[in-house]
Amino acid sequence: MLALAGYPLGLKFRFLDETRGPAADVADWRLASFSDNDALDRFADGVDLVTYEFENVPVSAAAHLASRLPLFPPPRALSVSQDRLAEKDFLSSLGIATASYTAVRSREELEAAAGRLGPSCVVKTVRHGYDGRGQVVLRQPADAAKAWDMLGRTGRTLICEQLVPFTRELSVVAACGHGGKMAVYPLVENEHRAGILFSTVAPAKSVSEALTADAHSIARRVCAALEYVGVLAIELFDCNGTLVANEIAPRVHNSGHWTIDGAETSQFENHLRAVAGWPLGGAAAALPSRMLNFIGEVPPLTPLLEIAGAHIHLYGKEARPGRKLGHVTVCGVDEEDADRLFRKAAQMVGAPVLAARS
Amino acid sequence: MLALAGYPLGLKFRFLDETRGPAADVADWRLASFSDNDALDRFADGVDLVTYEFENVPVSAAAHLASRLPLFPPPRALSVSQDRLAEKDFLSSLGIATASYTAVRSREELEAAAGRLGPSCVVKTVRHGYDGRGQVVLRQPADAAKAWDMLGRTGRTLICEQLVPFTRELSVVAACGHGGKMAVYPLVENEHRAGILFSTVAPAKSVSEALTADAHSIARRVCAALEYVGVLAIELFDCNGTLVANEIAPRVHNSGHWTIDGAETSQFENHLRAVAGWPLGGAAAALPSRMLNFIGEVPPLTPLLEIAGAHIHLYGKEARPGRKLGHVTVCGVDEEDADRLFRKAAQMVGAPVLAARS
Repeated sequence: MLALAGYPLGLKFRFLDETRGPAADVADWRLASFSDNDALDRFADGVDLVTYEFENVPVSAAAHLASRLPLFPPPRALSVSQDRLAEKDFLSSLGIATASYTAVRSREELEAAAGRLGPSCVVKTVRHGYDGRGQVVLRQPADAAKAWDMLGRTGRTLICEQLVPFTRELSVVAACGHGGKMAVYPLVENEHRAGILFSTVAPAKSVSEALTADAHSIARRVCAALEYVGVLAIELFDCNGTLVANEIAPRVHNSGHWTIDGAETSQFENHLRAVAGWPLGGAAAALPSRMLNFIGEVPPLTPLLEIAGAHIHLYGKEARPGRKLGHVTVCGVDEEDADRLFRKAAQMVGAPVLAARS
Repeated sequence: MLALAGYPLGLKFRFLDETRGPAADVADWRLASFSDNDALDRFADGVDLVTYEFENVPVSAAAHLASRLPLFPPPRALSVSQDRLAEKDFLSSLGIATASYTAVRSREELEAAAGRLGPSCVVKTVRHGYDGRGQVVLRQPADAAKAWDMLGRTGRTLICEQLVPFTRELSVVAACGHGGKMAVYPLVENEHRAGILFSTVAPAKSVSEALTADAHSIARRVCAALEYVGVLAIELFDCNGTLVANEIAPRVHNSGHWTIDGAETSQFENHLRAVAGWPLGGAAAALPSRMLNFIGEVPPLTPLLEIAGAHIHLYGKEARPGRKLGHVTVCGVDEEDADRLFRKAAQMVGAPVLAARS
């Protein structure tokens, strides 16, 4: 989607990935290990600048490239977001509310943490969790032993977080240009199913000016502290009007996909404008939109295409349970219309496919 | 632009052209002569269907491909639109008004035609005219001799047309699906400079219901008669509310470029939906838009990107005087806003570059 947004702006692309990805069909594409510095050097030859759209790019690879040519967002955005403890520490250092948390390195520490933070808390691997993987919810202190058996045996550090009693999950997606310029998209409401983002409502409904101001302030503080350039998303819990930050995604984000069809400028175009040092495009919503992910399988397209205002985006990925293979965005003339189109689309998209069908 | 619209729908593309074109950077791309049937066969291998977006594809090449696999629009759309006489005869046979015209094959016939159709008329080569090339305007019968010297010596048949005293030029752009389904975009007003489309206003202002109905009727008759599948544009002269058809373009058209940013579904996506046999997308305008072509040179992008609601589209073509290298579309919240953004953009885009600069 970055390449498709960039071609009309006259940009050319080269992609590097460790597995064959969808960009292989639409751009110069290289398969290499992120730890192979020679491959990184060949990749960088003749390139003007580098960006990334995957937060598990090793910091070492980003730092190696950044020593040779401009790289945005800065590698520190990766190191902060790849480590849940570093991320929480970072947010706390900026005075941004997070769930109460503590690091745990043993069964005993987990039991103590669950006692202190519980009754309900969630224990997660500090690194490499994604779409709900690598985490276990504890409903009572006695669950701690089982959680340790599931996650602790890897020898990885874990983090135990108090479960935040939120009313909904929101995202703030912002494009940060050079020199502190920002374009912040309207807040988005996210609906998860089985731990995976299933749908978004954008702009989120019932958002007060104070809530918007709080979200903008959080985004501004995070971007300033990271000297961020590019698009970033911050997942926020809305606890009756108080925002608690959950995660930073240093990249274009699924909760910003609606912007391709529903905003003045898409997050992909704005990411490219930001890293290229160009003026940012407007981030206002053009129409109320609802986005639905295709998880595990792509539904039949014809009925979806019958829906007025439906825009389909397939990623060219091989189907696999739990994998996001594409999405559809429906734009309505007003909120009621958008809700109506969403219900129609949701019937066709159906529930996420999380396990292989027999 | 077709490929960029098709990737999100899961389509893959292979392009064939006689010269290296912009699609070479974004798709599987083949260089071959349209008259090389072996190359056409290799091109067609493994392909599900063929379409075209250039009306000078030889009918023989289209017919050769159509004998092997589905090809839309039908080859007859090419034969009609490649020959100005056949085109005018075709339109007349459907009861669609055109300028009075006659074929001329000699200096004497041209002089006679100029006397009969004049004082103002235009003489054109019947084939291969484009962007004002291959045509001469006669202001008095005495101009006929000079016009013959310029155009007649090639031995090609010419057409002499009465100059239509139009108030403005409009386009109707329509997507035609299988089985007669149509999605017709709002009428567009075209402004030419030096014979080349320079800008469009979409939707055109001051369009009565009767004018829309007339334009739709023309599009419907043309599509039905050609058994057309795909997007087509018809250039129309608006003569104080009476429409006179000028040209049929059997393809996505420059006067439909605004649809990428200003309509519910772009003409490129709708062309693909049509030829693929999928439901057509809505053709309503989302916002009032103005499009400006970059002719002969690409203006500096940064000031254009500063304009809120401006969307830049570069084609990746080498600069050449008179060549369309890209366009910018500005979308306003209302007509006044769109006009204001247009004036701003027009200052930056400047006049077409029609000759090499010294």
